[in-house]
This record gives sequence, structure tokens and C-alpha cells, in this order.
Amino acid sequence: MLYKLMEYIKSGMDDWELWKKKAYERMIRDKEIGYLDPDIYDVLVAFFKREKSFTYSSCSGRITIIDSYLPWIRKNSTIIFKNHLGITEDDVKDILEKPQVYRLWLVSQGPILHVYTKDWEEAWDIIKIARNAGFKHSGVLTVNNKGILVELKTGIKLVQLLRENSEQQVSEDQIKTIVKISNEVLKKGKDKLWELQKLVEESLKTKVTA
Amino acid sequence: MLYKLMEYIKSGMDDWELWKKKAYERMIRDKEIGYLDPDIYDVLVAFFKREKSFTYSSCSGRITIIDSYLPWIRKNSTIIFKNHLGITEDDVKDILEKPQVYRLWLVSQGPILHVYTKDWEEAWDIIKIARNAGFKHSGVLTVNNKGILVELKTGIKLVQLLRENSEQQVSEDQIKTIVKISNEVLKKGKDKLWELQKLVEESLKTKVTA
Repeated sequence: MLYKLMEYIKSGMDDWELWKKKAYERMIRDKEIGYLDPDIYDVLVAFFKREKSFTYSSCSGRITIIDSYLPWIRKNSTIIFKNHLGITEDDVKDILEKPQVYRLWLVSQGPILHVYTKDWEEAWDIIKIARNAGFKHSGVLTVNNKGILVELKTGIKLVQLLRENSEQQVSEDQIKTIVKISNEVLKKGKDKLWELQKLVEESLKTKVTA
Repeated sequence: MLYKLMEYIKSGMDDWELWKKKAYERMIRDKEIGYLDPDIYDVLVAFFKREKSFTYSSCSGRITIIDSYLPWIRKNSTIIFKNHLGITEDDVKDILEKPQVYRLWLVSQGPILHVYTKDWEEAWDIIKIARNAGFKHSGVLTVNNKGILVELKTGIKLVQLLRENSEQQVSEDQIKTIVKISNEVLKKGKDKLWELQKLVEESLKTKVTA
């Protein structure tokens, strides 16, 4: 480990480039073991191709069903369903057949990307590209030894109470509607993700870097 | 106007302080004509008391009912209910009696504050205080001639489909549940807002500035 580090330093690679290399290796490993969201790889690769950016713990957008008192609380809450590609009526019916502890929430949300940039110029460039792709809630979260941490986020979010308690009835019609709309919301998020990928890829052509 | 501007410049006030003064005057004017959210004044004043901060277009948290195809889309959508203090079952019943154009969404969301800071040290200080108060989705949106624009936001949000079309039935029980939970969500946001106010006020005591 120390030897490897020495080797990097000798090769003229600075700290930031070391973090980028590690992040890339981690992404490839995550992809191989199936940790990476099934549809996010190409977008992340586009960011890595920019000389001064790399991504970190990103989400392609997903539908979750959470058993929790309130949907944003992590403590004592359980994610009982999670899928990045969609949900079916049967998924919901299966879940509603079982008793719940708190309340059941269905959350359908757009993609969230975390990008570390090497400098401020790159950070604002990335934010500008993201806003043009519809990631209107983008900004800088912090600055640390990995660089400037930029969060790219859309306003796409559905946070729906599915059932307050196990005794409540959810009708067949309600299930049909909520499944249809959740998938529609998820799809809108994916559209923005593909738009982002396209704009980042286009930015590579106009840069001398890449 | 020009004379006033000259006067400021002569008095040694720099651009940023001019923006702060204008923002303060605007806030007072908004308060007088009732544009300001009814419960946000004290929090904003706390921020203004910090030497290097002022607030801009902030929201104390609110419940809205929106007639829109999808809830985050502004185009062709109509806000048919908006209240920063809560919603009643009668409010919802009245709305459901009328026909709608697209879909009806009920959104209950926590506070969002926009703070301009004079320098980066102040920006990160404000973000740190906000995160400690539970505003976990805080970050820097942009840098412009008014300073560094910081957004302070909680994760508190409910985005609920109330009715897909005018023909759908929403039961008395469903209205009761959704009103109760929307108000509960709003309340959680207000709690964080008061916590933020407290922490900002406390920060004034430990600073030599004020």
C-alpha cells in the first residue's frame, strides 16, 4: 500500500488524481459485483472522461417503499422495496399483504449525482451543464481533500403515503394509479439522466482535454 | 436614486453592504404589505444580524395543492391552495368539490432559506450551523455580484397525489389521514426552522461582530 502510494507520487500524480484513480477502480469493482445502479455506468464514465471530474456514490433514480414513521427519517425505518427500473402492481400487492410497523411510503425520485472536481472553474462548468439538462437543484456541498463536491439533482420526486397502518384498505384502482404514476415519475428522471449524459459527452468534444 | 448611491459610496459602504441594505429594506417592505411568510420574520432578522450575511426570497415551509400534470412542473400548472400555517379537512373538501384540469397534488414541504454571504468563511459557517439544525440539504448555489448564494434546505417533503381526475372518489377517511399527516410534516419543518433561528442567534453571542 505504502509502496504503491510512493510509486504514484514518484510518477508525478498529485493527490487529486490519486483520488480519481481510486474512485474509478471502486466504480469498476462495484459494477462487477452488482453494487452499481444497473443503468448509471455510461453516465458516470462520461464524467470520468472530463479531465478534472470524477463521480462518487451516485443514484440513477429509483422507486422505494419505506416502512417508517416519516419518509425522510432513517432511524427505525426499513426499506422494503427498492428498484431503479420500475415497480409493478404485484410488487405493491405483495407488500400490502404483509403487516407493517409504522407507515408505508412510496418514494419515486429522480437521479442524484455526486461529482468531485479539481477546481472551481470545473465545478461551475459541471453545474451549468447539469442545470441545462434539467438538474435545477444543483450546487456545491463541501470542499474537502478529494476536491470540490458538487451535487446534481432534479426536482423530480413523489413521496406518497401508501398506507397509514396495516388495517387500512388500498383499493385495486388506487394501486393501479400509484404504480402508473410512480413509473411515469421515474421515467422523467431517467430522461433527464440521459440528457445529462448527452450534454457531458458533447462537452468532451469541445474541450481540448479528454 | 443616483444621489443616494453616491452617498453610500462616499460613506465607505461597499457594494456588498449596499446589497444587504437593499435586501433589508425589501424585507421590511414585504413584511408591511403582507408578502413575507407570516412566521419567518424573526429567523430572517437573526441572519441579518450576522455581519456578513443577508437573506433573500426564503420560505418558512408550506402546504400547497397544485393542479398540474406533474407536481414539479410550473408550466400550465395552477396553485389552488397555499398556506404556511396548515390545512383543514374543509379546505380539502372544498377543493375536491370543484373539477380539475390535470391532476391534484398535495405538497407539504419544509423551509427553504436563501442566504447571501460576503465571503467563503461565512458561507461555510452558515452551512455548518444549518446542518446542525437539521438542514441537511444545504449547499452553495452560485456566486454573483450579491455574494455567495447559499441554500438551506431540509429533507422534509411530502408530494402526494390527491386525485388523478375529477371523477375519482377520495373518501372522508383518506382526507382525514392526508390532512393530519400534511400538518404533521409541516410542523416538523417549522421545528427545524425554530432550531435554526436558535442556533443563528446563539452564534451572534459567540461572535465579536453582531
